[in-house]
Amino acid sequence: MKIKLGAYLIVSLSLLSSITSAEEPIKPITPAKEINLAQAELGKQLFFDPRLSKSGFISCNSCHNLSMGGTDNLKTSIGHNWQQGPINSPTVLNSSLNRTQFWDGRAETLQEQAGGPIANPVEMAFTHALAVQVLSSIPGYVTQFKQTFGVDQINIERVTQAIAEFEKTLITPNSRFDQWLMGNPNAISAQEKAGYQLFKTSGCIACHHGEALGGDSFQKMGLIEPYVTQNPSEGRIAVTGKDADRFKFKVPTLRNVELTYPYFHDGEAETLTEAVEVMGRIQLGRKFTDQENANIVAFLKTLTGHQPQLILPILPPSSDNTPRPQPFE
Amino acid sequence: MKIKLGAYLIVSLSLLSSITSAEEPIKPITPAKEINLAQAELGKQLFFDPRLSKSGFISCNSCHNLSMGGTDNLKTSIGHNWQQGPINSPTVLNSSLNRTQFWDGRAETLQEQAGGPIANPVEMAFTHALAVQVLSSIPGYVTQFKQTFGVDQINIERVTQAIAEFEKTLITPNSRFDQWLMGNPNAISAQEKAGYQLFKTSGCIACHHGEALGGDSFQKMGLIEPYVTQNPSEGRIAVTGKDADRFKFKVPTLRNVELTYPYFHDGEAETLTEAVEVMGRIQLGRKFTDQENANIVAFLKTLTGHQPQLILPILPPSSDNTPRPQPFE
Repeated sequence: MKIKLGAYLIVSLSLLSSITSAEEPIKPITPAKEINLAQAELGKQLFFDPRLSKSGFISCNSCHNLSMGGTDNLKTSIGHNWQQGPINSPTVLNSSLNRTQFWDGRAETLQEQAGGPIANPVEMAFTHALAVQVLSSIPGYVTQFKQTFGVDQINIERVTQAIAEFEKTLITPNSRFDQWLMGNPNAISAQEKAGYQLFKTSGCIACHHGEALGGDSFQKMGLIEPYVTQNPSEGRIAVTGKDADRFKFKVPTLRNVELTYPYFHDGEAETLTEAVEVMGRIQLGRKFTDQENANIVAFLKTLTGHQPQLILPILPPSSDNTPRPQPFE
Repeated sequence: MKIKLGAYLIVSLSLLSSITSAEEPIKPITPAKEINLAQAELGKQLFFDPRLSKSGFISCNSCHNLSMGGTDNLKTSIGHNWQQGPINSPTVLNSSLNRTQFWDGRAETLQEQAGGPIANPVEMAFTHALAVQVLSSIPGYVTQFKQTFGVDQINIERVTQAIAEFEKTLITPNSRFDQWLMGNPNAISAQEKAGYQLFKTSGCIACHHGEALGGDSFQKMGLIEPYVTQNPSEGRIAVTGKDADRFKFKVPTLRNVELTYPYFHDGEAETLTEAVEVMGRIQLGRKFTDQENANIVAFLKTLTGHQPQLILPILPPSSDNTPRPQPFE
């Protein structure tokens, strides 16, 4: 009897789970699959290695800090020589779920994205050739590239491929909202459920849906009411050259949004309350009451998933032949 | 019979171990003891938290990078607004073994040291009061401080105590040299042994001895021959005011020296070969042959211990009330 009851419960829960999930426009995050572990391990080291920058001080993790939701929590980032970056650093968490990378979608893949900041003069300010020269002078990297890719030569394609493979592992499953989607009715509170309902009925869901709650379309910032900002970025037009794409930006994921403040491409919204207010007003033409705003914010905080548990990599030391960083030149 | 032989072997090895170790002026590192784990875990988060800086960009780990031997591998560090630091960042690894902290020994304890960079205008450029205000606005920290110290109030003493407790865990045991000291005759090669012999007979050992191979005395940089440098630091005189202490610096640990390049208080020696050459010449009046130099370098590389295996901390998010970083003001 006991066993039968157990089996019955499992079937019921499993049915409930698939029903809930199938009906909702947001899907639970699926764990990373088909990861090349050797590449990902190498990529983790590269992600944390400031020797990919001219200064020897800035790594991928500097602006996509995995202790802080994969962001730097700054309006816009600090680059080489303390230059102020032009745009807010998007989170690297779940970035494999984005259809394109960067706010304007100018990179099609994570691999293509990874090469950008290394050579950007206001970010890491290095060149691909110099980065490869540095890595090729480090015996611990030479061995790993050989083991991982089966060839002696390090090149930027393999560097960025390894970084991208690591980034594919940065998935944050098991948020309270996903637990609810998968059939645990107590995983979120009544207020959080009310927030989710309003998120759907007020139209937020039109752009923030799917596994990532975003990342799959470009939308005009200021659809109903113009968005006022000092930030000069014009968004997608930089890629397509089309006037219709001016001020269109990639819809960011809302996964872990509790951790990825400040918000918007210009980082001008410091809190979720402010971000929800502005989005409602300029994108949906809607003025949320304080209670409505609080409900949506409560819902958004259920999207914080399990953060990647990473062993801090120990980087292979430079050799006597490694070109030294040039932070002040 | 078998058991008896086994017991005999164990006794022999154990005797060998104690004899070797007792005779040598260098001692194996002993693991960290009496650690308050709650404080150390909290301290780890603080060590990695850039919100202890004005910019929100610089953490303890920026210049004492635990992926890179507890240093930044730069001649002198990069501080707030890309200011050039005055002196080479010493490693935080095994720093609990130092009798005093900083190159000039101006801090008596790790706790006292930890408060320095936070408030130093060319480093993290914050104030203790503002750092405490930031932490006190972060619910995840408030809870942890309460759990750890049993009181509601966060203050700079508790912040630095937690950081110091974490730093006490950053011990690097089990280097090949320590394995040799503890009785494994094959842990180091003939060349490495020759290097160690020369290290002792030529006089390096006079200052670099004990568990840390350094950290317990101040010595004049340029004892036999003046040391030529552009670096304006005058060392210990800054603390004692005594002319006799001009250009005296704390003897640095040689543990993990393979990872802590570049060398000297000014970071001007880029390689171990160069550092050994200069030390021999200006401190001992000795010109090592290329072979002698290579032997000593080979010995020094046996001092790399097991690096701390750390789970990257996930930092508690700021609240709506947390003062925001001011990187560009």
